[in-house]
Amino acid sequence: MPGNDSQWFTEACKEGGSAFSLMIREKLHDEQSKYQRIEVYATETFGNLMVIDGFVMLTARDNFLYHEMMSHPALFTHPDPRRIVIIGGGDCGTLREVLKHEEVAHALQVEIDERVTRISEQHFPELCVSNDDPRAEFFFGDGIQWMRDASDASVDVIIIDSTDPIGPAEGLFTEAFYLECQRVLGEHGVLVQQSESPLYHMGIINPMRKAMQRAGFSDIQTLFFPQPVYPSGWWSATMAGKQELATAFRAAAAKNKPFPTEYYNAAIHHAASTAPEFFHRALD
Amino acid sequence: MPGNDSQWFTEACKEGGSAFSLMIREKLHDEQSKYQRIEVYATETFGNLMVIDGFVMLTARDNFLYHEMMSHPALFTHPDPRRIVIIGGGDCGTLREVLKHEEVAHALQVEIDERVTRISEQHFPELCVSNDDPRAEFFFGDGIQWMRDASDASVDVIIIDSTDPIGPAEGLFTEAFYLECQRVLGEHGVLVQQSESPLYHMGIINPMRKAMQRAGFSDIQTLFFPQPVYPSGWWSATMAGKQELATAFRAAAAKNKPFPTEYYNAAIHHAASTAPEFFHRALD
Repeated sequence: MPGNDSQWFTEACKEGGSAFSLMIREKLHDEQSKYQRIEVYATETFGNLMVIDGFVMLTARDNFLYHEMMSHPALFTHPDPRRIVIIGGGDCGTLREVLKHEEVAHALQVEIDERVTRISEQHFPELCVSNDDPRAEFFFGDGIQWMRDASDASVDVIIIDSTDPIGPAEGLFTEAFYLECQRVLGEHGVLVQQSESPLYHMGIINPMRKAMQRAGFSDIQTLFFPQPVYPSGWWSATMAGKQELATAFRAAAAKNKPFPTEYYNAAIHHAASTAPEFFHRALD
Repeated sequence: MPGNDSQWFTEACKEGGSAFSLMIREKLHDEQSKYQRIEVYATETFGNLMVIDGFVMLTARDNFLYHEMMSHPALFTHPDPRRIVIIGGGDCGTLREVLKHEEVAHALQVEIDERVTRISEQHFPELCVSNDDPRAEFFFGDGIQWMRDASDASVDVIIIDSTDPIGPAEGLFTEAFYLECQRVLGEHGVLVQQSESPLYHMGIINPMRKAMQRAGFSDIQTLFFPQPVYPSGWWSATMAGKQELATAFRAAAAKNKPFPTEYYNAAIHHAASTAPEFFHRALD
């Protein structure tokens, strides 16, 4: 397989039969936290790179795609997104995007591994620029347990910004967890979760959508977007709502958003919601 | 850098600082044609893979993305696409998609290297299923010269399905070539050309769009789509038209298309035409 040497970092994706590599300058950090191995590299063209247990988490250059698509579609779909909970998201990139919305009164990041956040503050300071925002709160602990303990109808938008559904994040892709989310979300609640590659992982996306439906969400919408550093370079996030998502989308607000983005805009919202032919057929 | 060994084929993208690898079973073909080195591998998960001069051309698994986006948007934008010319496209995948349109009376594939087509017939027979269609014609020769020799207003849609704008294909990305295309296209003529990665190659896309404008095309539209085996996994094609492209799009015909596709549909047409924020800014 492609090598990991002093010039390249390589992640092989077994189920995809593919590998992606980035040219690196130097390793900036390497530690075994209580939960996982966390590495940071300086790359030649993608800025800093964070790797957890050998899997690429993000780079400075292209994380805007993922972080914007994990936050703005869901927030512009809720009529009044004031109370936001991010499960995972320890690098704080999603939190930064969430806090661009003025309506947000409180954004809680529930990350199991505090070291991810501390390392991000050091090596991805641009993602952590809003960490001192008085609306931001950090809880370092288990997301599944947090959701069980949360009060009914106490959250407007839940963002599940987790690793793959293997290992510690597996429980975040289950009907039991979605049932808790459904209970914790308020009347117009919206949930959004990263949902892997449309090319490689229909076997994850399909059961996940069905579990969301069984948990009582009345509408499910998968968003498609490029993400070069993730397997296949093509990624998705799936929204689940207590109401019809397309009609709830505040298109005018998205069109007139008072903050800058690199990828997302109102037209991209519609575009990302558009499913390819094979996806329609796979859902039938 | 990542290795090329008996288990992996790797293409490094120098300007992107990245590399993409596919797990391989065996090499099926390796020849030096008059123009280039052509290799075919059997991969573990992507079916057969064609490589030219070390660059991934296509795989059986994901070429549907590229071939559908190189053909259907342009054909559904022309009011009556009867006469089609494909410059390059020797693997015949674009030709196959073009011939799905019943209105097409004649589709000419102008490929410089006949060996690409012969090897495709052998190792990608599914792309060549329409090669015996009486509407299909093959000319093996230089695309730039062919365009110079072509009569005025003799073609409805020109599809430039070429390699990167380095080496032999460089002349296909110039104002001089677009001027010839403009002359050869009829009244409602549409041109479409592969235009590299939106993440890596804005330095190609921007000048290319400007050259099309200078050549007299009245509307330019870049289409965005995933393409896992090309650098960054995110690719583009750029359409140039003698009329406003969005209004010319035959949406009802696309919606009711009588042939199957894997990726393209009428909604995807709109979605692919939607530019990210950074792209709008880069064009300003």
